[in-house]
Amino acid sequence: MRKVAIVGIGQTPVREHWQSNLRDLAVSALRDAMDDAGVETLDGVTVGNMLSGALSDQEHLGSLIVDYAGLDGVEGMKIEAACGSGGAAVRMAVKAVASGLMDTVGVVAVEKLTEYSGNHSTAALATAADADYETNMGLSFVGINALLMRRYMHEYGYEKRDFAVFPVNAHANAVHNPHAMFHFQIDEKTYSASKPVADPVSLLDASPIADGAAAVIVVAEEDVEKYKGMPISILACEVGTDTLALDNRKNPLWLRGVERSVKKAYHVAGVTPKDISLFEAHDAFSIMTALSLEASGFAEAGEALRFAEKTGVGINGGLPLSTMGGLKGRGHPVGATGVYQVVEAITQLRGEAPSPIQIPRPRYAMTQNVGGSGATVITSILTCLNK
Amino acid sequence: MRKVAIVGIGQTPVREHWQSNLRDLAVSALRDAMDDAGVETLDGVTVGNMLSGALSDQEHLGSLIVDYAGLDGVEGMKIEAACGSGGAAVRMAVKAVASGLMDTVGVVAVEKLTEYSGNHSTAALATAADADYETNMGLSFVGINALLMRRYMHEYGYEKRDFAVFPVNAHANAVHNPHAMFHFQIDEKTYSASKPVADPVSLLDASPIADGAAAVIVVAEEDVEKYKGMPISILACEVGTDTLALDNRKNPLWLRGVERSVKKAYHVAGVTPKDISLFEAHDAFSIMTALSLEASGFAEAGEALRFAEKTGVGINGGLPLSTMGGLKGRGHPVGATGVYQVVEAITQLRGEAPSPIQIPRPRYAMTQNVGGSGATVITSILTCLNK
Repeated sequence: MRKVAIVGIGQTPVREHWQSNLRDLAVSALRDAMDDAGVETLDGVTVGNMLSGALSDQEHLGSLIVDYAGLDGVEGMKIEAACGSGGAAVRMAVKAVASGLMDTVGVVAVEKLTEYSGNHSTAALATAADADYETNMGLSFVGINALLMRRYMHEYGYEKRDFAVFPVNAHANAVHNPHAMFHFQIDEKTYSASKPVADPVSLLDASPIADGAAAVIVVAEEDVEKYKGMPISILACEVGTDTLALDNRKNPLWLRGVERSVKKAYHVAGVTPKDISLFEAHDAFSIMTALSLEASGFAEAGEALRFAEKTGVGINGGLPLSTMGGLKGRGHPVGATGVYQVVEAITQLRGEAPSPIQIPRPRYAMTQNVGGSGATVITSILTCLNK
Repeated sequence: MRKVAIVGIGQTPVREHWQSNLRDLAVSALRDAMDDAGVETLDGVTVGNMLSGALSDQEHLGSLIVDYAGLDGVEGMKIEAACGSGGAAVRMAVKAVASGLMDTVGVVAVEKLTEYSGNHSTAALATAADADYETNMGLSFVGINALLMRRYMHEYGYEKRDFAVFPVNAHANAVHNPHAMFHFQIDEKTYSASKPVADPVSLLDASPIADGAAAVIVVAEEDVEKYKGMPISILACEVGTDTLALDNRKNPLWLRGVERSVKKAYHVAGVTPKDISLFEAHDAFSIMTALSLEASGFAEAGEALRFAEKTGVGINGGLPLSTMGGLKGRGHPVGATGVYQVVEAITQLRGEAPSPIQIPRPRYAMTQNVGGSGATVITSILTCLNK
């Protein structure tokens, strides 16, 4: 089994891209990553995407994107794992290179959500939940997160304002990321005044739907000198799963998918939570950040909010989170998010983040991409190759 | 890189399964394959499916199916490549095992199409074509195949009745396959009297949409003695792609995706077309069978129909096709078809086909799963492990 590394990254800004279609966004990010790596062609492409069929009447993205990227005849496949599609596409590329079947694999994750009415997008997104036992009862993803947040407050005695720490940090960092969707700061007061979407989830708890594409080039570690881009080693890219429906879980406040995924990742990478220099968590909703911190071993059950205040989650804190804005500040182009996280972790490890949000000498960066309310979790641990 | 083999197969009958939902069908086939292999758990599952989002309001099938199959926490991912989704899922499992990251991987491909109005299914299936340049102009897949068939007849001087050889053979074989959808014979007269769907494509040129699931268990060749099922070696499982839109192809009658895929497969397997004992072609439409035979190297351009008559495509012919009924006779549960083909090829290699349709001592079986009108092609070459 060959060790794998990433030698190229690319991304479009996260926006409402009304002037660009799905293929344009994907090709732009992929070609940027290829330029960064200094490659003219690829052995294969894995495409992460959730909703091209529902919202753009376009399935079959694998072959479409390789064709439009000028990679005539190359293998291209779409991988779907709801909001975890991007991370899943990275995982598939790791397998392709580790096997020796391919040497240079592009991963591009793309989503286009904003050209449609809110109801249409919300219904499409709800296909990540259990259609027979959740969605058909009228439950949307905001609703699922409202149930979890309410339960968390009830069980552990938190107030709504205690969650402010995550979105406030995300927006503070996003301001400095030119690819981020939101470039405005918020504070605890703005957060508390934010309108409810599904009580207790308010607008500033929820990441915005968005359009965008991000890409990386995965190669064998033994070959990195052949490529131009600064190589970053993928020490681990591990998957854990759980039930889709919340009501099938013994304890809905404990994300077993996260626990399974990180345990494997720490083991394979040979690190512990204390070694992590920055954590790109899946902060689709404030409650998800809290639950992820706990199941990832950073805080005890029910302690995530106190942990965040005490340890500090800012750029100079004990555990920097959402360093380029996270899903909340950078935006959440659903199936593309997992690759944005990896691109951002690599930007930090390379030392290429804008100075106010560059983590000083990061060693291990961890990304965690979550599909549904924790049913598919992909945790990656990355480091510079020669450290 | 490890060599890979299949040690378990499972399938549901291909039917209008109005009483079973997507997860039931998938779990049934997967558990049957696991029983055949004699395994209690799996390291991972790849799910082939195209239209669960559009037709069952359910994405995120990977985690859903592993959960309902009793594989708590196991990695599950959905792969989508239009009608090539099943073959693509096999390809992904091959990578997972070849890499050494996983030892025992389940592939299950599932589709549920028949509970919806014809228009809804036709629109959903059209997402396999180019949405911006084909579908939005009103072109459906029947229309695409009608254009190809008319052009073929014009270029090479064939009559409509010359295509009868493929559907007549498919139905003759399907009669003996208990899992097939159609259990009635047709002849040249029935074929010629068949009503037009999109002239010159008539009803008996077009494979029926259907529900079903098929599964295989992929393992390392070095480990096959650990499993119960008779092992079949995957000598090759190779992908070729082409443009989605027909109008981007230099010669629409030459399937470059097929040519690319088979060339790699023959090379990797070390065989030539003459070595193939049976060919499970993607006979979604009669014209696709003809074009596939040509681009696969069995017949010269424009010669497929004469080749079929001369060589014989029946069970005792020179190149048996659609030996268990093919897409035309067994039925075409879109994203599941590629795995049905592999299950059927293995049934033949194991000598387990019902006697009237068992190929005598087959050596190399070839399956070819096609997404769209040739934009994604996965060709596999299989043989018994100890021959």
